[in-house]
Amino acid sequence: MFISFEGIDGCGKSTQARLLARHLEAQGRPVLLTREPGGSEGAEAVRALLVEGDPGRWSPVTELLLYMAARRDNLERRIAPALARGDWVVSDRWTDSTRVYQATRGGDRVMVDALQDLVIAREPDLTFVIDMEPERALARGLARGHEEDRFEQLGLDFQHTVRAGYAALARDYPDRIRVVDGDADADTVAARVRALLP
Amino acid sequence: MFISFEGIDGCGKSTQARLLARHLEAQGRPVLLTREPGGSEGAEAVRALLVEGDPGRWSPVTELLLYMAARRDNLERRIAPALARGDWVVSDRWTDSTRVYQATRGGDRVMVDALQDLVIAREPDLTFVIDMEPERALARGLARGHEEDRFEQLGLDFQHTVRAGYAALARDYPDRIRVVDGDADADTVAARVRALLP
Repeated sequence: MFISFEGIDGCGKSTQARLLARHLEAQGRPVLLTREPGGSEGAEAVRALLVEGDPGRWSPVTELLLYMAARRDNLERRIAPALARGDWVVSDRWTDSTRVYQATRGGDRVMVDALQDLVIAREPDLTFVIDMEPERALARGLARGHEEDRFEQLGLDFQHTVRAGYAALARDYPDRIRVVDGDADADTVAARVRALLP
Repeated sequence: MFISFEGIDGCGKSTQARLLARHLEAQGRPVLLTREPGGSEGAEAVRALLVEGDPGRWSPVTELLLYMAARRDNLERRIAPALARGDWVVSDRWTDSTRVYQATRGGDRVMVDALQDLVIAREPDLTFVIDMEPERALARGLARGHEEDRFEQLGLDFQHTVRAGYAALARDYPDRIRVVDGDADADTVAARVRALLP
């Protein structure tokens, strides 16, 4: 089973991905915990191109291609083999992030979906959107380090747009996406996530 | 006008691209001479990922996405602005290289063309394939340095397959692609190229 976590910066999704992976392992299930962009060796090299340097370094389409290259590498080299072995895969972000963030950058959602179908062709079986008011994420101090930089750089309005984007995606993919209220302590949110496992 | 040069390793296409650019400049035409992968700052960073490290570092599809990312960056940042100014652009390789080399690596030509239409959507106005027997390219010592490595690494059979791939492409795009006999000294070949300019 392939599970992804999504949400605005600072919503706690990386923590929740880790807690779910730990829970599954405690049940004796082998788990690959991965993140995007990155995960595999090649994808981490592409990640470095994406996260370093001037934010205007890449145009939306070039950035999209680099994200897809990193995703494809991680899929081929680590995720697909893990799923083939029968392991569970828990990923901090997947293509939903691209759908939402590219749209906020004025990118072309049709192009994202066409590329996804062409070169990735794999959606998670289940996606948890950890939902939270951007103001709460900031106030709760979850948006720290790199994520705090993003809040300052991109602003609260941007995070509101991203949050609305995830809400719209959840309506587009009702069978796959579960929205979880993230405004509670990590263990409470983790219990909410576990309650939604099949 | 956007002109590309193609051909097997060691056929002399980089030399011919340079000679044509020099000829156009001597006629008072501003020219952007570029190469693939690379050209722009971002594309050169992606190029480093493609040319460094283990040859099996990237799967065919991931490699394809990285080539397309580099191409898109060079197109947006350098080629399209040059063409918009009315400059000529001469490029050492373009998407035809991807079509031919991906096919020889077992890649999917349908995927290459779909990506090309989706994210590049720009063919050269004119493409010169510098044609030569691989054995002649080796014997004439044109295949030197990095290219010599490729001959040794990939073998003569590989270069024959690439050559046949270019011949097939020339049949697919008869209005755009001109095949030029490259088995002569550089100035003679350059004169053959110039004679085919509109």
